[in-house]
Amino acid sequence: MMFKIAFSFLMTPCLCIGICHGQSKKPAAGSQNSEGVFPKGAKITNSNFTGTVYLYPMIAADSINATDVGNVTFEAGARSRWHLHPGGQILLVTGGKGYYQEKGQRKVILRKGDYIKCPPNVAHWHGASADSAFSQVAVTGREKGPTVWLEAVEDTVYLAGER
Amino acid sequence: MMFKIAFSFLMTPCLCIGICHGQSKKPAAGSQNSEGVFPKGAKITNSNFTGTVYLYPMIAADSINATDVGNVTFEAGARSRWHLHPGGQILLVTGGKGYYQEKGQRKVILRKGDYIKCPPNVAHWHGASADSAFSQVAVTGREKGPTVWLEAVEDTVYLAGER
Repeated sequence: MMFKIAFSFLMTPCLCIGICHGQSKKPAAGSQNSEGVFPKGAKITNSNFTGTVYLYPMIAADSINATDVGNVTFEAGARSRWHLHPGGQILLVTGGKGYYQEKGQRKVILRKGDYIKCPPNVAHWHGASADSAFSQVAVTGREKGPTVWLEAVEDTVYLAGER
Repeated sequence: MMFKIAFSFLMTPCLCIGICHGQSKKPAAGSQNSEGVFPKGAKITNSNFTGTVYLYPMIAADSINATDVGNVTFEAGARSRWHLHPGGQILLVTGGKGYYQEKGQRKVILRKGDYIKCPPNVAHWHGASADSAFSQVAVTGREKGPTVWLEAVEDTVYLAGER
């Protein structure tokens, strides 16, 4: 059921825009994410992530508001590849414990109530901690182009010291 | 304490940008909002709202990411004036029960996990229900100008039927 919902959002952005403009979007009953506030959505099946990660697309960018919003839930140990956003990104943490790291910097710990502003074109990764799931809402500017995906985050990097 | 934090954000956007870029922002201990996920912040003292409303500014727009993010908490019965956003707005509901209404439309009920995409330049208001507080994260595009504030929402409009 959740797969169908998320799939329909991913494949029919025009429909999503039609629904979302000036309308409340009600997640399907039983779809709430126990780790966060917003629905968990469908498992991501592409190779941009290590481990098990779920995406629930909430708001699709359009010609008059070029901002995507999606809820991303990482199971313990899961994380993104290194990547960058030409238009930057904002992360709003709604549950669990996770990490964010920019290239050349130490990783930072994120918990419910934390938030991050990722600068445009700065390589970084984010994901869950090794022992806890992690939920975040991602707010992504799309007017300057799509996300650029880079190499996977090696275990030695992922497991390095926290700050 | 919370007033000081919010005040410093409001008055020193350059400082906020410096802190937020690539850094995790940790709310002060004890500042979590029992009605939502993000801190409650300081009471709004301007005339753009009816009743008691709190604002916690999270992310400030800057020259390379013209998006503001703030957590807004309405006490029961509180609401905004009618207003519009030249760049549109996205509302992410993190707690309580509230309303959203566009001019000429019926109001819609919003609860935790719901979200709204407000079209640019469409007059609307949002706020708590009469018997419950309401927390929402507002994601606002600033590149097309500031919010335009209109008249207050009369009690008869506020209390009209739900859908």
